[in-house]
Amino acid sequence: MRLSQFHLRTTKETPADAEIASHRLMLRAGLVRKLAAGIYTWSPLGLRVLRKVEAIVREEMDAAGAIELLMPSVQPRELWEETGRWEKFGGQLLKLQDRKESWYCVGPTHEEVMTDLARHELASYRQLPVTFYQIQTKFRDEIRPRFGVMRAREFLMKDAYSFHLDDAGLDAEYRNMHATYSRIFTRLGLRFRAVQADSGAIGGDASQEFHVLADSGEDAIAFSTGSDYAANVEAARAAEPGPRPAPAEAMRSVATPTQKTCAEVAALLGVPLARTVKSIAAMSGDGFVLALVRGDHEVNEIKLAKVEGMADYRLASEAEIATNLGCEPGFLGPVGTRAPVRVIADREVAAMADFVVGANRPGEHLTGVNWSRDLPEPDAIADIRNVVEGDRAEDGGELRIVRGIEVGHVFQLGRRYAEAMRCTVLDENGREAVPAMGCYGIGVSRVVAAAIEQNHDDAGIVWPEPMAPWRVAVCVINPKQNPAVVEAAEALYRELQAAGVETVLDDRGLRPGPMFADMELIGIPHRVVVSERGLSTGTFEYRARSAAAAENLDRSALFALLGAGR
Amino acid sequence: MRLSQFHLRTTKETPADAEIASHRLMLRAGLVRKLAAGIYTWSPLGLRVLRKVEAIVREEMDAAGAIELLMPSVQPRELWEETGRWEKFGGQLLKLQDRKESWYCVGPTHEEVMTDLARHELASYRQLPVTFYQIQTKFRDEIRPRFGVMRAREFLMKDAYSFHLDDAGLDAEYRNMHATYSRIFTRLGLRFRAVQADSGAIGGDASQEFHVLADSGEDAIAFSTGSDYAANVEAARAAEPGPRPAPAEAMRSVATPTQKTCAEVAALLGVPLARTVKSIAAMSGDGFVLALVRGDHEVNEIKLAKVEGMADYRLASEAEIATNLGCEPGFLGPVGTRAPVRVIADREVAAMADFVVGANRPGEHLTGVNWSRDLPEPDAIADIRNVVEGDRAEDGGELRIVRGIEVGHVFQLGRRYAEAMRCTVLDENGREAVPAMGCYGIGVSRVVAAAIEQNHDDAGIVWPEPMAPWRVAVCVINPKQNPAVVEAAEALYRELQAAGVETVLDDRGLRPGPMFADMELIGIPHRVVVSERGLSTGTFEYRARSAAAAENLDRSALFALLGAGR
Repeated sequence: MRLSQFHLRTTKETPADAEIASHRLMLRAGLVRKLAAGIYTWSPLGLRVLRKVEAIVREEMDAAGAIELLMPSVQPRELWEETGRWEKFGGQLLKLQDRKESWYCVGPTHEEVMTDLARHELASYRQLPVTFYQIQTKFRDEIRPRFGVMRAREFLMKDAYSFHLDDAGLDAEYRNMHATYSRIFTRLGLRFRAVQADSGAIGGDASQEFHVLADSGEDAIAFSTGSDYAANVEAARAAEPGPRPAPAEAMRSVATPTQKTCAEVAALLGVPLARTVKSIAAMSGDGFVLALVRGDHEVNEIKLAKVEGMADYRLASEAEIATNLGCEPGFLGPVGTRAPVRVIADREVAAMADFVVGANRPGEHLTGVNWSRDLPEPDAIADIRNVVEGDRAEDGGELRIVRGIEVGHVFQLGRRYAEAMRCTVLDENGREAVPAMGCYGIGVSRVVAAAIEQNHDDAGIVWPEPMAPWRVAVCVINPKQNPAVVEAAEALYRELQAAGVETVLDDRGLRPGPMFADMELIGIPHRVVVSERGLSTGTFEYRARSAAAAENLDRSALFALLGAGR
Repeated sequence: MRLSQFHLRTTKETPADAEIASHRLMLRAGLVRKLAAGIYTWSPLGLRVLRKVEAIVREEMDAAGAIELLMPSVQPRELWEETGRWEKFGGQLLKLQDRKESWYCVGPTHEEVMTDLARHELASYRQLPVTFYQIQTKFRDEIRPRFGVMRAREFLMKDAYSFHLDDAGLDAEYRNMHATYSRIFTRLGLRFRAVQADSGAIGGDASQEFHVLADSGEDAIAFSTGSDYAANVEAARAAEPGPRPAPAEAMRSVATPTQKTCAEVAALLGVPLARTVKSIAAMSGDGFVLALVRGDHEVNEIKLAKVEGMADYRLASEAEIATNLGCEPGFLGPVGTRAPVRVIADREVAAMADFVVGANRPGEHLTGVNWSRDLPEPDAIADIRNVVEGDRAEDGGELRIVRGIEVGHVFQLGRRYAEAMRCTVLDENGREAVPAMGCYGIGVSRVVAAAIEQNHDDAGIVWPEPMAPWRVAVCVINPKQNPAVVEAAEALYRELQAAGVETVLDDRGLRPGPMFADMELIGIPHRVVVSERGLSTGTFEYRARSAAAAENLDRSALFALLGAGR
């Protein structure tokens, strides 16, 4: 492509409402332009990137045996009534009426349309297993669209749906899709993790999210150095703690007149924060509860709610605390409490000796506290905390915490949609069977933004090569003054193209500074400068986008480096 | 592709509501499935065809210098208010409100979004001319969606928009797009005509439609054998008639007691219908009018309305006819009328001698009527009729009339959108200039249906090769009984694929009858049968979809025929 024949429009302005790097850079590089809140036009440059992602997704889905089709965007209400989601989906569902006053929605997802198609198209077990997919524009009416295409209302998605006679078939395809997604994100050149979306402790179908790792990611992810285990921080589990040490100290009271937090108490006493215990007062259906976690840990509300009797717990009020412990917050502790007060200890707390807790008296804490000796064993011991960086993982490795952006999701739907919509096939024995379903999504347009979050610097985007709008930029210095330079650049451009290297020729006649700035902003991986000086020495100035400096290469070295050798 | 790994679902049932061949065949071949009125899912098979069309359109648009982008589907009301089309577009505009109760529409076209983009992205004449295009899903809320994807509500369209500093630039791009469309439809293998959409007699910007020719087409098209002139029948013009012959007969009255139509009178008198003249009574702003066309011609209302004074004409009532001519309909004529009755003669009528007209007396006609001698020359002479098959064309050729399906449209919008939306660029002199615009559409999904209307037989679809889901079908006879046949078929399949011939292997194990019927129904251009008998003679049974019979070919002849030689 000759840039003079293309529409490139970069800007130095940083839009005021762009909060994150990808949003700023996508606007500055002119990849997208906002039409309305959460609704964007993809410019010619942006579309080139979007199509790169789309093509890799399509190739890998095809290679995995999935079959592409194309479902409509506008969907009739009746189907959504069958699954109960017309109401349940909530405000993200963009509803509308046509001229006959029939209700439709602009599809935010396609489980209903797909299951409707399946109940018409699939009749026999011989047609199973089968996986259909599409790459299609969707709409979700987000309350607060933001971050550009990262959380847009209209977006491009690859969604896939599989049908199986039995759960083993679903499992197999789930693993196939998991492997396919790993190949897709690997081919895109992204650092990513497949993450357990839920701890799965209470039944539920398998579900994993694929996250592109980036410091700006909305989700915190814990992963193990010992295996490919990864989970949302809220769902992650650390290893069981080691055995409880024997008591070494006597319990004694210390004055903590103004020290209410574990950190303040630890500082006052000169002990590690990990020796203190935090007491959280809560009310459950069974009454007053003290939940204990180490001073350097945080309670995980989801995990705590999974402890027996805690499903609907809430934090206790100061009045309830006063009634049950006779004390104000800041000095609470388990020592001396009696039924009906229930003590739930995190696994780590139950394995502690000689720890520090509040004394249930204002301005006073207890040190050297030990289970059994100074207070009864906890009423319940459970994993009720968030993991932290450095925790030991269940696989023996160490947990690390990174931030990620969800770009994909694989999910075992089971039979809920097929049952609700009466989708059946005849099995080997001629009996009607409800197929098990899986669904598998990739946010195609979001991948573009996530890639930028992960790969950028002060000068702009640093595309992974497979996503770059072009691999190579050939920049012409002073074209108007130097016909020989233009000729050499044109020749190089044609030769690179002929060698299969996707190249853009910057023949716009800009001065070198703005031209290089543009190529850096839009993130072209390889830049080759054709200048009078280079011609005189038989070299080209080459610089990789990610490199600190340029180097001069002769033609054969340049072509070898760009993989266009011979 | 192995069909056993694909999802093909054909049916013998002819859906009751499918009125035209393409609709029936698309459902029977399983190319699409209806989700709601005018809303269709494209099956894996259908999508393959749709993508073929899309790819050719994209290649040719790119080659023509147009630049692809992707605009949103959901569009804010404000833009449509600027052009006044929020109201004017009418019921086809699918309006909706988001959760904040702001109004949007699901885009039926993109002039507003494009012009909005242009006013932000285009600043200087140096960026012009430029043509943007997209291939995108649109929605028009048709009153009566029908004919399957031919007149669907949700459909896939290629729409392009060009911007120019001056009209000459617009003209040049209009011609470029016209040529591009001709290449696209030629490459698709379709018989088509570029048709003048309007006579253009009263100003107006240039506009042409591209029609795929098919007997079932909704539009009648006149084209000339003498050039590439073609126009909608309503807009088509024939050549000027020759000079008026000298009178040869005396005018006389004949009794036509029950003969009211020209055909009845001609039959009674034994004269050609072309010797009779039809008198149409109308009321215009200036009063009563008799419009005259030859008995074998039809008045063209659009042309008649363009005659001076006739802009708002309507047909006269029987009372008005009685008042002005003293006669009932069926026996009307221009002889003996006086001002204020105005006589407008079609050019052909003005060139007639010795013609037959009503006598303005019940049960009576006049023969041998001649201008000047028997009645004054007409008050106005104009082209006020529809052309008919066999008319002489203005280029000296002969007019033929065929039926067509509109699949494309090129249009000079001029400056109406840019002016309404205050889109300007700076010209060479630094002054603000409103750019001229063109727009250019192709109904991508409609092309698929139109191709079938043009290319089908009793057995099913007969795809033009460039649109076929696969070029070649390799059919395996009795695979379960014949491992050698399966092996040979697999080898042939792999070799054809390796030679770049897009091939499908029908390895489903169907009996030959249903297997061949499927391949004919879905319209695969070339069928190769691998059977035990063929193996024993070293031949393959080959049949072109359009051929009457099969033939036996050896491998090299087969590969040569399929263009996979060597």
